Amino acid sequence: MTYCVALKLTTGMVFASDSRTNAGLDQISSFKKMRSFYEPNNRAIVILSSGNLSITQNAINQLEHQSRNSDCDNIWNAKSMFDVAHLLGECLREVRDREGIFLTQGNIDSSVNFIVGGQIKDEPMRLFLVYAEGNFIEVSEENPFFQIGETKYGKPIIDRVIKSDTPLCDAVKCLLVSFDSTMRSNLSVGFPIDLVCYSASSFRLDFQHITQDDPYFAQISRRWCDGLRSVFTSLPNPDWLNRVESSNFQSSN
Amino acid sequence: MTYCVALKLTTGMVFASDSRTNAGLDQISSFKKMRSFYEPNNRAIVILSSGNLSITQNAINQLEHQSRNSDCDNIWNAKSMFDVAHLLGECLREVRDREGIFLTQGNIDSSVNFIVGGQIKDEPMRLFLVYAEGNFIEVSEENPFFQIGETKYGKPIIDRVIKSDTPLCDAVKCLLVSFDSTMRSNLSVGFPIDLVCYSASSFRLDFQHITQDDPYFAQISRRWCDGLRSVFTSLPNPDWLNRVESSNFQSSN
Repeated sequence: MTYCVALKLTTGMVFASDSRTNAGLDQISSFKKMRSFYEPNNRAIVILSSGNLSITQNAINQLEHQSRNSDCDNIWNAKSMFDVAHLLGECLREVRDREGIFLTQGNIDSSVNFIVGGQIKDEPMRLFLVYAEGNFIEVSEENPFFQIGETKYGKPIIDRVIKSDTPLCDAVKCLLVSFDSTMRSNLSVGFPIDLVCYSASSFRLDFQHITQDDPYFAQISRRWCDGLRSVFTSLPNPDWLNRVESSNFQSSN
Repeated sequence: MTYCVALKLTTGMVFASDSRTNAGLDQISSFKKMRSFYEPNNRAIVILSSGNLSITQNAINQLEHQSRNSDCDNIWNAKSMFDVAHLLGECLREVRDREGIFLTQGNIDSSVNFIVGGQIKDEPMRLFLVYAEGNFIEVSEENPFFQIGETKYGKPIIDRVIKSDTPLCDAVKCLLVSFDSTMRSNLSVGFPIDLVCYSASSFRLDFQHITQDDPYFAQISRRWCDGLRSVFTSLPNPDWLNRVESSNFQSSN
């Protein structure tokens, strides 16, 4: 399984992905699910992927192959992030056309998702979700994020914290908490976490590779857990529970 | 969609279910997903259900029908909760045998899940999860809860808080927070919430019906949200983000 999430905020973007891949519980590996394309003062693009790894790697490979041919439309000469999302969707369609039938014969799911975002010169930052069928949608101002893979465990904290005007620093912390919640509840999402911060119009990507023994992540995880428990303990008891005449209904506050 | 959860703790049990049912977004109704069977000083049993409503109602109806015939094994003369789970599984199998084929013809999923728990005299409290196929498992000491339906959004807080020795009062609060997180992230889970507390060996069920304008739930929801934001704000910034030389990387702490 996979967990990837990307945010588009007023001041920049944050992308994060786990790196655990499994084909059955006895076959667990670590693969990068993040690719970036970067040219100073011109473009900064990040792609996150979830789903069948052979299909996502193949589609990205196709995209990179195209990019070496300057005669055709490619990720280095695309005029907009919309065009980049379109290119990626087309690569995915080609690969699924070619490979999908063989996977179907083996009863293997060939569906994948991509998140692709970033900035190209003379355009604002943009963020897209590419579906398994190669079609795609753009993020909205109201819900300025996309998640793919094992998305649900880590969604409540993002729903609560992230708005378009959330500072990048808070966004980074929110994503780490979201990963912490996901990894506690689902063993198939795991370290290391790849994280990229992008400050609007900087055309520079700042990478972090967060491993299992990362002291900052451990600190966030512990303080979040302790903080939640403390908030939880401070919640008032319901009147109706106090009325229940049973010595067993004890509370911790 | 549905969200149901039940806990078996040292001092008692808590059961909770939402009551929203939908067949397409334009057809949303409220149905009870909780049934209880109670005889003073003898037995207290609660059943929660998720999945195809016609199948769950039919299976429960079958169980109730049996219970009027004292010559056959039924929920009133069952000697153990294991037997009750078995009876429920058998009712489910009968109903799916009878109805499933017609639903399959209409491409309708007939799968359902039940949680069934409680206590029968001379036995400790027990809690079971009944699968769509009618087989079932019992809860463990390490993970003393079952969830069915839209389970993931509300699982992290349960994972963090609930242990076998959690007081019932805290367990109730935890479940309300879990419902709050689920309802924020998925509109198809909704009020009212039916909640039952059972204190060990009391053979008495305490019901609460929590509606959308319940002042206690609103208070829990608001204080939890404020508390989370406050914990979040107090989390330390990463060193590496402070090193990033960009005025856009502002933090709220």
